[in-house]
Amino acid sequence: MIAEGNSFMDLALAEAAKAAATGEVPVGAVVVEAASGRVLAAAHNRVEADRDPTAHAELLALRAAAAQAGAPRLPDCDLYVTLEPCPMCAQAIAFARIRRLYYGAGDPKGGGVEHGPRIFQQATCNHRPEVYGGIADMAAGALLRAFFAQRR
Amino acid sequence: MIAEGNSFMDLALAEAAKAAATGEVPVGAVVVEAASGRVLAAAHNRVEADRDPTAHAELLALRAAAAQAGAPRLPDCDLYVTLEPCPMCAQAIAFARIRRLYYGAGDPKGGGVEHGPRIFQQATCNHRPEVYGGIADMAAGALLRAFFAQRR
Repeated sequence: MIAEGNSFMDLALAEAAKAAATGEVPVGAVVVEAASGRVLAAAHNRVEADRDPTAHAELLALRAAAAQAGAPRLPDCDLYVTLEPCPMCAQAIAFARIRRLYYGAGDPKGGGVEHGPRIFQQATCNHRPEVYGGIADMAAGALLRAFFAQRR
Repeated sequence: MIAEGNSFMDLALAEAAKAAATGEVPVGAVVVEAASGRVLAAAHNRVEADRDPTAHAELLALRAAAAQAGAPRLPDCDLYVTLEPCPMCAQAIAFARIRRLYYGAGDPKGGGVEHGPRIFQQATCNHRPEVYGGIADMAAGALLRAFFAQRR
């Protein structure tokens, strides 16, 4: 699959919508090979479906992309995700040596990039991707708000 | 499998030795159902073998234990690991609602519990396990030193 520019975030948003439709927290992620624009993996949150506390969209996308690439490190890849990654996913992004991270809405409660432990700013962090936040955050935020409003 | 007291850490050390034997960073982890002493999962680092940047011993053990338990949260379980968990694994431990974390050697360079972002001390951390560090740290540290000495 090949797509350009903001359409990678649109793919991530479509993944997030799939999560919402199955009662999962609506977050979607896409890993793209930067030079070719090839989508290596697209995933959404599956914590409840998979009964796996680590099944966040980013972790699933990173694992699938690494399997595709046949390597545990993806230095030529970018990750698009609809929500600011949590500390677990941010550290996984560093381990995977992702080149650029694009994310949608910031997450003051659970985020680990611009909030909480700010993983990439830790002196012990092994790799810092370029970070671009606030991409299509209106759409990403609307999905999340609708999800949590429905649950109340 | 049923074992008691320090023998859970011995199981984790045996897992770490398996990792060393296959050229992986030697870390092992075990998830135990606290009341019964039943070992739900035992795992070792498989980053290179699985080509998976997230395949740390703790993450693999948590995922396998959650699959065993049929639930993404394990509030009645303890985790034994030979090395201080990294920030990714510490956050996964919080998501899994692990009751107690027992670990071996501290890790000033890569740890996320008593070093770096100190995940469980973040205001945004959703759950704090009881933490017991320095368990069998001589054995865990010796395994790691031997591994890195061999690589130099």
